[in-house]
Amino acid sequence: MSKVRVHNFHISLDGYGAGETVTLDKPIGDAGGLFAPFDGRFIEGVDAVDAPITLDRALTTTWGQGIGAEIMGRGKFGPQEGEWPDDGWRGWWGEEPPFRTPVVVLTHYAREPLHFDNGTSFHFMDATPKEALARAQELADGKDVRIGGGPSTIRQFLAADLVDFMHLVTVPITLGTGVLLWEGLDGIQDRFTVESTASASGLTHQFWNRATND
Amino acid sequence: MSKVRVHNFHISLDGYGAGETVTLDKPIGDAGGLFAPFDGRFIEGVDAVDAPITLDRALTTTWGQGIGAEIMGRGKFGPQEGEWPDDGWRGWWGEEPPFRTPVVVLTHYAREPLHFDNGTSFHFMDATPKEALARAQELADGKDVRIGGGPSTIRQFLAADLVDFMHLVTVPITLGTGVLLWEGLDGIQDRFTVESTASASGLTHQFWNRATND
Repeated sequence: MSKVRVHNFHISLDGYGAGETVTLDKPIGDAGGLFAPFDGRFIEGVDAVDAPITLDRALTTTWGQGIGAEIMGRGKFGPQEGEWPDDGWRGWWGEEPPFRTPVVVLTHYAREPLHFDNGTSFHFMDATPKEALARAQELADGKDVRIGGGPSTIRQFLAADLVDFMHLVTVPITLGTGVLLWEGLDGIQDRFTVESTASASGLTHQFWNRATND
Repeated sequence: MSKVRVHNFHISLDGYGAGETVTLDKPIGDAGGLFAPFDGRFIEGVDAVDAPITLDRALTTTWGQGIGAEIMGRGKFGPQEGEWPDDGWRGWWGEEPPFRTPVVVLTHYAREPLHFDNGTSFHFMDATPKEALARAQELADGKDVRIGGGPSTIRQFLAADLVDFMHLVTVPITLGTGVLLWEGLDGIQDRFTVESTASASGLTHQFWNRATND
């Protein structure tokens, strides 16, 4: 079975998954503190860096395992709004986007796909979560699909009951403003089995797995 | 830096990492209970199986990340003792050993290397831990080396202070007999930073990272 997975999704104690406004200088709005503990370890994996393999690090490295495609919201791809300007923007990541798979970017504005040498490609789609997922599963060729965020995108897929697994990381900070993950998702816990663990760093990791009817 | 790593090493509450005698029917001696919680998830990763991605599962899947070679004791390769019989034995795993990298097998008895289509190869060596590691690092081509067990092999590498990282899993059972991991390793904790966490299944996971002198 091809799973739909969310990984390393960081939220504040008060439930915010990103700041209000994404700009070129602030890719996740004013919520930079959310990602302070998040030093790129999901990309490098447990190898190739001298840093210790902590519980946090071990858990975040499951991000790429068995993933064949990602779906992301437009804000994760770039700070632009409205029609795409002719500015040569190819995402935040330069010529080495960390995804190395096809990525479906949800946007109301059409744009030609982008391809990169490392296996990453961006496919722009005006679609419902269900339609986007069907396309991503096609691109994933039997592997799992990751819902890459931001919070509004994850919330939409949770609301549509399309998520099989979510690794949620609560960061011990408050933000007071921003994009809420849980808005409109009352009672969502009934659809999942939730396991929690805390790490020495102060982060809390949760594993949400779709509940089975057995 | 190429790290030397131990992963998913299961021990009982009373410190045993394997049973007394390895036979064809009992690959880890009488200590089968140790691996009852261990359903092959380290091989499959988090994908390609319908099972939920629990904390246990997420942690064990770091096993293969960035690994370029393994070192194992003879008992992990087969139940034979003394000179290698001419019996066509190619390890416990048939023609698809899960390693997919070169493996150094420590044995006092010479034998020609074995090669498999999936990238696994076995190289038989009569060597000290330090010599075996030098050879494994050569074979690993810059990637990390995993010390794959059994417990006597891991104990030797720990005693020689050659291990950078160890993921230890304590299974809530007692065995009363078998191969002890800790024998002769008094004070070993002084050389490591240790982080512990428990999972809902009853397992306790520890992350031993070599202490730095900073």
